[in-house]
Amino acid sequence: MPLKTTQLKISDAEYQSRCERLAEIIDELGISGVVLFDADYIKYYTGFAFIPTERPMGFVMAKSGDKGLFIPRMELEHAQSMAIIKYITYYREYPDTNHPMNVLAGMLGEMNITGKIGADNDGYPWIFGYRGTPLSELTGNEFINCRALIEDQMAVKSPAELALLQESAQWANLALTLLQRYTVVGASEIEVAHRASNDATLTLLDTIGPIWRNNSGYHEGAVATYRGQIGRNAAIPHALTSNIKFQSGDVLVGESSAAVWGYVSELERTMIIGTPSDDQKRMFDHMLNLQTLAMEVLEPGKPCSAVDKEVRAYFAKHDLMPYWKHHSGHTIGLRYHEGPFLDIGDDTQLKAGMVFTVEPGLYIPELGGFRHSDMVVVTDDGAQMMTYFPRTLEELTISV
Amino acid sequence: MPLKTTQLKISDAEYQSRCERLAEIIDELGISGVVLFDADYIKYYTGFAFIPTERPMGFVMAKSGDKGLFIPRMELEHAQSMAIIKYITYYREYPDTNHPMNVLAGMLGEMNITGKIGADNDGYPWIFGYRGTPLSELTGNEFINCRALIEDQMAVKSPAELALLQESAQWANLALTLLQRYTVVGASEIEVAHRASNDATLTLLDTIGPIWRNNSGYHEGAVATYRGQIGRNAAIPHALTSNIKFQSGDVLVGESSAAVWGYVSELERTMIIGTPSDDQKRMFDHMLNLQTLAMEVLEPGKPCSAVDKEVRAYFAKHDLMPYWKHHSGHTIGLRYHEGPFLDIGDDTQLKAGMVFTVEPGLYIPELGGFRHSDMVVVTDDGAQMMTYFPRTLEELTISV
Repeated sequence: MPLKTTQLKISDAEYQSRCERLAEIIDELGISGVVLFDADYIKYYTGFAFIPTERPMGFVMAKSGDKGLFIPRMELEHAQSMAIIKYITYYREYPDTNHPMNVLAGMLGEMNITGKIGADNDGYPWIFGYRGTPLSELTGNEFINCRALIEDQMAVKSPAELALLQESAQWANLALTLLQRYTVVGASEIEVAHRASNDATLTLLDTIGPIWRNNSGYHEGAVATYRGQIGRNAAIPHALTSNIKFQSGDVLVGESSAAVWGYVSELERTMIIGTPSDDQKRMFDHMLNLQTLAMEVLEPGKPCSAVDKEVRAYFAKHDLMPYWKHHSGHTIGLRYHEGPFLDIGDDTQLKAGMVFTVEPGLYIPELGGFRHSDMVVVTDDGAQMMTYFPRTLEELTISV
Repeated sequence: MPLKTTQLKISDAEYQSRCERLAEIIDELGISGVVLFDADYIKYYTGFAFIPTERPMGFVMAKSGDKGLFIPRMELEHAQSMAIIKYITYYREYPDTNHPMNVLAGMLGEMNITGKIGADNDGYPWIFGYRGTPLSELTGNEFINCRALIEDQMAVKSPAELALLQESAQWANLALTLLQRYTVVGASEIEVAHRASNDATLTLLDTIGPIWRNNSGYHEGAVATYRGQIGRNAAIPHALTSNIKFQSGDVLVGESSAAVWGYVSELERTMIIGTPSDDQKRMFDHMLNLQTLAMEVLEPGKPCSAVDKEVRAYFAKHDLMPYWKHHSGHTIGLRYHEGPFLDIGDDTQLKAGMVFTVEPGLYIPELGGFRHSDMVVVTDDGAQMMTYFPRTLEELTISV
């Protein structure tokens, strides 16, 4: 028998089966076909990873099952080398003397996609200076937004996807370990973050290099950062990386991830430099209680909102609402944030294969921000942690 | 007199004047106000740099001149610390039990924005699992797409923007210098790219750290990479970073940039490892001729297409069209690609203050890709190079 080689990547057979599920959406919506412009959707259904720019790209699938890629000339060899799709229509360039959307309109005609056309957007989004007519206006067809159904499909991960997310979690673990190890008073955030990311990535390459591809626009290799969440700035959950130098007494929120064949994980830890104050200890304990509480609610069949309700009830009970800033988590996969969300307004039913970050946070002006984020997969009978970094204050205190 | 401090960043007065130009768009379109959802547009008019996610954010400006930010609770302190806008409406969370778009609808009502509403998109785009109703449907108002006029404003750079792009070009120069220096046979692309980026960024911090901010979602500090354009893979213009090891005879396309208060430059060089072959020399020479030719066409008053026409004529004259893959360049600023484009289909008039990359490329299967990219600003009487890295084959040959 021909010997199979070890591989990490998603198989062609899985891309085929994803396309079969896309065909179900076409049936469900009663549309003649679908056009997907979003780079992550195209990657999900075809395996083609590329850099989205002002040059429109699309994956087209007809009710008949015919599939095609719509790309600029520039991406032809690239698409041929990566996508499972063999039928490729390309235009010369954007904007060119014949606008690319005219070429797409012709392609849709050839594939008998007319009348009701499903798409993730009515025409290519105006990325990076692109300008163009909506698809409905261009073709005279009716635009049916199929984005919600696409998102529903992507939300439940296959075993192969879970394996890639688990692989990613390991490298995120290494990157965060190094971030914590390299953090010392007086060093700058960027210096420490780059060193940790670089070392973790080189080790990733030495370890799984031959069977690894990055295939993500979100990260390159393994990454760890504080993203500006340092000292009093840690009270800003989505701060931006700056050039802050670490001081004794700082509360830090470190985070890490790694791109593995496009899939990305999330791991975050609150750390404290020097001896934690009583207030810091108290908030850290609340944060840990909240995260444990949220994780234990996760099980299939419940609505996503159930988790966030428990979390908010804890906030209310302990008079912590002034320190609340966001919901309890989000799903994750090819994108570092995905839906559904662990939010009181999201009643999507939890299903086995959904992978959530669990990350209730507390943000106190002057004191700092307190948030751990772990990646948890919903299983048939409950949930399972995918990340495994130490969680206690003792283990996350950086001595001075 | 109070002593002024050295600063690199865009002044509050310039943000004010940008908003005044936005008011001209409101007048021109006869709309009651405008809502901008795009993170780069918000940064351009308000100075608020943030990470766009599934939580809708918007900058709202009424015909009256009233301005407001629409953000999630989570970003409140962040927005207050960065944006020039003082009127902020925030919602609790997305999706929450009251969808954020309802809060935006209320805000528009309070600001008397009704009837014809300008926006860059009919509702918040479906980023990262966001789901929502179009603004027109939600409010019963008419959506007027004002994106083209916004893009027109952003395309002409102010002196302060040119200074930031020039500053960025210097750090791109350092990063590319180190990329070339560290490239040796047997090393892996990622190892060399990370080392060059890291060293350049640490030097940037040591040099301008106290007056620098990154404020970009595209890069962190200075970056240099080959992005997979190595050896025969260099024939794929938008390849992705992989784990390729350098070999003698490889044609490389190295590229670099740096984020400086959100602004990014572009610098690219074709390099060859070992003694260039005759075919490689010939293609390198053509590439250099093409780039020089394109640069010399640039002057105010001409259409963008004039540059690309000259380039294509050269391709045709020398029987090079089989190796053509893309137009001659794009503008650049807060985003690494912007419009207008140096493309035969783009008749936008060249204006002083527009900053273009000039980068005609030749791509030959098996041999590799040949492309330099330089950043050039259109001036009152011609054009001026902003990048200054060596361009000759001799200077770009890496000895083995």
